This record gives sequence, C-alpha cells and structure tokens, in this order.
Amino acid sequence: MSPLRITIVGVGLIGGSLGLAFKQGAVEEIEITGVDSDPQSLASALECGAVDKIAADPVAGTSEADVIFICTPVLQMPRLVGEILPHLKPGAVLTDVGSTKGFLKQQFLTCFPPGVSYIGGHPMAGREKSGVSAADGKLFQNKVYILTSDENTSQMALELVARLVRMTGAQLTVMDVESHDLCAAVISHVPHVVAAGLVSMLGSYPGKEESFLQLAGGGFCDTTRIASSNADMWADICLTNGKAITEGLEELQLILNAVTRAVESGDRDKLYAFFSAAKLRRDSILASL
Amino acid sequence: MSPLRITIVGVGLIGGSLGLAFKQGAVEEIEITGVDSDPQSLASALECGAVDKIAADPVAGTSEADVIFICTPVLQMPRLVGEILPHLKPGAVLTDVGSTKGFLKQQFLTCFPPGVSYIGGHPMAGREKSGVSAADGKLFQNKVYILTSDENTSQMALELVARLVRMTGAQLTVMDVESHDLCAAVISHVPHVVAAGLVSMLGSYPGKEESFLQLAGGGFCDTTRIASSNADMWADICLTNGKAITEGLEELQLILNAVTRAVESGDRDKLYAFFSAAKLRRDSILASL
Repeated sequence: MSPLRITIVGVGLIGGSLGLAFKQGAVEEIEITGVDSDPQSLASALECGAVDKIAADPVAGTSEADVIFICTPVLQMPRLVGEILPHLKPGAVLTDVGSTKGFLKQQFLTCFPPGVSYIGGHPMAGREKSGVSAADGKLFQNKVYILTSDENTSQMALELVARLVRMTGAQLTVMDVESHDLCAAVISHVPHVVAAGLVSMLGSYPGKEESFLQLAGGGFCDTTRIASSNADMWADICLTNGKAITEGLEELQLILNAVTRAVESGDRDKLYAFFSAAKLRRDSILASL
Repeated sequence: MSPLRITIVGVGLIGGSLGLAFKQGAVEEIEITGVDSDPQSLASALECGAVDKIAADPVAGTSEADVIFICTPVLQMPRLVGEILPHLKPGAVLTDVGSTKGFLKQQFLTCFPPGVSYIGGHPMAGREKSGVSAADGKLFQNKVYILTSDENTSQMALELVARLVRMTGAQLTVMDVESHDLCAAVISHVPHVVAAGLVSMLGSYPGKEESFLQLAGGGFCDTTRIASSNADMWADICLTNGKAITEGLEELQLILNAVTRAVESGDRDKLYAFFSAAKLRRDSILASL
C-alpha cells in the first residue's frame, strides 16, 4: 500500500506546524511534500522534519498529492488554487487553513473539477511569532480546528481531512460556512482588531510614551497579545470577512457607548451590572471549555 | 527597637497578598494587623499568615500603626479614612492600593491633620480570583507598583512606603497623580472595559451561544482574561477616573471607525499599515519591559 501523500503549500508557522504534527501523530504511512516560494523556508522545513520532500513549483508539488493543505494568507489562495487545480489527480482533496471561509467558498464554488473535493478548514491556533522557525508539532493540541460542511460536501473527503486533523491533537468541530464566519468574527477577528486598536491608541498621547511603558504590566500584555501577529494575514481576514467584522465592531461600540453614558451619569448600578455580567459570562465560558 | 507596625485595612486578594509579601520580604521586624468587616476574611488572613493580629474595628486596628495600607474598593476609602484619621498617631503614614489616584487626592486634600502623611499607591497586579483565599506573597514580584508624589509629598513618608513596596519584589515607579490617571486609563482601565465589552457582545447574537463556545479558544480567553475580575472594584474605577476613561474610549472608537472605513472601502494598504504598526509597537513595548 502506498503512503498517503500530503502536500503543504506555504510552510510558515501553520504549514510547518501541521507537517510536524502529522509526523508526530501519524498511525499510517504518510509522505509530506512542502511547497513554498521562499527557498529558505523550504530548506528550514526540510531540516526540521516538517516535510519529507520539497518543491518550488506549486503544480509539480501537488499533482501527485492525495491531500493538499493550502497554508498561505487568504487572499493568495484563489490564484494559487486556480493554478494547481487543473493538475490535481482525480480523488484529490484540497483543504486550507484560512481564518475566513465564506470568501473562499464563493471563489471556489464553480472552479473545482469533478473528482476533486474542497473542505474548508480553520485551525484556531497561532503564536506571536511567525515563520517555519516558530513551527511546533504541538501547536494544535487541544485547540479548536473547524472544518466547514454543507449539503454539497463530500463526506468521504470530509472524513479524510478530519482524520488528519485528529492526528494533530486538535478538537475537531464541523460547522457551516456562514456560522463559522459570524462566530469567528465575534470570537477572534473583532477581538484582534480591538487589541491592535488598544496598542495603536498609545500613539494618540504624544509625550506620554515613557509613562505608558512604566505602566505596561501583565494586564496590557495579555489583552494585546494577539496584536503581535502577522499583519498580512489580518489585513486579508478583514477584507474577506468584512461584513461580520464591521457589524461586530458596531455592536461593540454600542456597548462601549452605554458604558460611557453610565460613567458620565455616575450610574454605579449599571456599571456594576455590566462588569458582573461580563465576569459571569466569561467564567461560564471557561468552565465549559 | 520596637517592630514596624503595619495595618492592612481590607484583607482581600491585594491586602492579603501584601501581608504575605511583607512577611516574605522583610529584613526588619514587622508586625501586621489585619482589619476587615468580614470575620471570615480576618480568620483566613490570620490562618494563612498574612497578618499577625486582627481587629474588626478600623479605629482600634489602626491607632497604633506606623503605616496603614487601605485595600478596600476606592469608593469606600474616603469614609473609612475619615473615620480612622483623627485617631492615627503622629508620624503615621497612610497609603492605599486604589487604581485611581486623582479622586482620592481630591478627597484627602484638606482632611489630613499635620503629622499624618498620605502617599497614593497603585500595585498593578491582580488575579482572576478575588478574596484572601487567592492571596499570594509573590503577586507583586516584577509587577509595577506606582506611588504618587507632588510638591507637597513628605519625602520621608514616600521613602518609608517605597521601602515596603520594594520588599514585595515589585518594580517601584513614582509619578504625579495626573500622569498616573491618564496612563492607567490607557494601559489598564480602557482595555478592561473593552475586554468586558467583548464578552458582553456574545449576548448580542441570540442562538449562536453554542457555536461561540465551540470557537472560544486561547485567543479569546487571553484577550478577555481581565474581564473576570472584581465588578465592585471596576465600577469604582470607572466612576473615579471617568474623564480619562471616556476620553480613552472615544480615542479607541476613532481608531476602530478608521478600520471599519478601510474594510468597507477595501483599502488593504491601510489595514496592513494598521496591523503592522500595532505589531511593531507592541513588540517594542515587550522588548523594553
């Protein structure tokens, strides 16, 4: 029996970590090919054992693959997938790790040939650092990994990708594309934009930089941790899940405006209710995780 | 030589942790009295060794003290301090751990008798849990602890409180009240309100609770960690540093509005610049800590 051939296109933090995680978790024979436009990343991926083989050309690197993981920023995916799609072998399954799914579904709707399946994926894992040098085979352990599914999804393809996701130690969740994009906006995208906003705000008070630094303790670093991630990735996320993100920002601003009004009118009961409801809700989320 | 007599009024998380930290860090003989309206907290503080003696009555517990740490929520401080002040011994130094300083300065301006000094304090440390059962003698280690000072501050009193703060392993910072309140709003208070707002937002999407829970991974828990703290304390902070907080929220909303406009107009360059500037700024803050 020949090994399961996996190709990872884009061997950065996520692609490299997937390779390492598959290697660590595999109970069957697998062979991983890494594809990247950056020769340095390819060499590092090979050296750290995230991939077994490398290819600079996406078509050459994917044409024999059983499963292809596209791990580039979201906006680069349509062109890349369009390029390799005609050369994939029948029965191949293509998946991706983009943080937004509706945009890709729209892009891919009409271009997949019969016999090649697409399964949207979104591992909710990341680190402050990027690049294959930060790759970690344990990155996905106990993290949520979403696969999207609708009435047209091939159950066989879904099961194949799900099997690989389970190898990484991630918690697999299957949901539809629309739910994913709304929930990801509220749970991940809006908090990220806000964290970046809180950091940017420090630039709005000229002359106070040094005092800010003196006060920047654990709380500020926690709240803004996610602001230290890949700017390319986040620009793409904002552009490809714009509606849910702007609606979420608007919703948040309504809440912040209510807080401002309570502060201005000295309404302690309202402020207390706001903070204690938030504490209750967060504690119950933590308890259910 | 008699021991340095310290009284901690309010033996919750911060008061209890201060007691433990003084005990662990003391190079001189100290005697700590705990005062609290809750007998259970007093008993626990005594049992865990945070205090040597306890008193239910604030006046009785503070009248012999050399240094008094007021560790109640901010809005309870003026009445409490007004009650004990006439009975403090000459040379006594009173300090507090409130997160806002201008309000207290205003309250205390005229009521301190000659011979009793006030030094405003703000340890920037906390935990998700509250109460003396969560107290930890290492809570302040390597955390910022601000003392406030102006032209009327007694340098001897400041040096005494500073000596105690250093015992806890905290990083001592001295600044004026106005700088403190502005910087605390930007670095701590506004991020806290926003974290609570992000959690509250989950209630704005009926029927989506379960999907939110499935997606609530590490990022969301990090960003909202500070939302799980004491609602009483935060209501008081909002009311006693209202101007800086509402101005900070307004500043943040201007930034978020600019992001919304960039998303709506598909301006990728602007989004990329926003995220990469935030990343640069946060990375440089971390590097300087």
